Amino acid sequence: MTDNEYDNTTELDPRIAQRLKRDPKGLVAAVIQQYDTREVLMVGYMNDEALRRTLTTGRVTFWSRSRQEYWRKGDTSGHVQYVKSVSLDCDGDALLVEVDQVGAACHTGRRSCFLEGGPLPVVVGHRTQEQKEGTDE
Amino acid sequence: MTDNEYDNTTELDPRIAQRLKRDPKGLVAAVIQQYDTREVLMVGYMNDEALRRTLTTGRVTFWSRSRQEYWRKGDTSGHVQYVKSVSLDCDGDALLVEVDQVGAACHTGRRSCFLEGGPLPVVVGHRTQEQKEGTDE
Repeated sequence: MTDNEYDNTTELDPRIAQRLKRDPKGLVAAVIQQYDTREVLMVGYMNDEALRRTLTTGRVTFWSRSRQEYWRKGDTSGHVQYVKSVSLDCDGDALLVEVDQVGAACHTGRRSCFLEGGPLPVVVGHRTQEQKEGTDE
Repeated sequence: MTDNEYDNTTELDPRIAQRLKRDPKGLVAAVIQQYDTREVLMVGYMNDEALRRTLTTGRVTFWSRSRQEYWRKGDTSGHVQYVKSVSLDCDGDALLVEVDQVGAACHTGRRSCFLEGGPLPVVVGHRTQEQKEGTDE
């Protein structure tokens, strides 16, 4: 292993751990996105060890706040999440985990937890003419 | 207004409010996704009033945990988020907000906060042959 490689074999590499901004319970939010369709499937939470397992095993592991235990997605349901990439956000309190989701991400059997909850009524916003003509994306 | 319409004019409609599962600070996580490219841009937090404003004004409003104030995205930066849709998840503790993001979502000037933080080293996972051949998505 070269000096530049991270070592997550027994604990989360300190260079990653020091970048995390955890909530009072030691958790960061993890947004789970299907890697090819880019559908947002669910949001879970990870502590340092859940993140370490997610980075090193090819499978997503959360910390279950309700059950207070590690939860490797799919172990009971078969609805495995295979890890494709993990990115940390600018201030270290959120993760974006791109996965290949087998079957349903939601415990209700829906593909996405947001399909289960469903849309709320919104007033849709639109760019101004100036913004449309600008060079911004 | 018919009986079926939600009324968010002065406060968040009780039928929506009762579905929210807030953290101890009264907040739910809001995943912000560009509506057409489906890029995940950032994660923010909303209380009931921030959600009400987001649903009714065409613009995304967060509750800033660091500044303890409402934060209508783009008011100082110009990097406005126009609301296209808002969905609640199955257990009411996360929102998916599809937006049209003008310019950069990240305060650093990057399009996405996850581009700014960047990728972590991962072991990539793969479906089993059985899962590849199955009828699951």
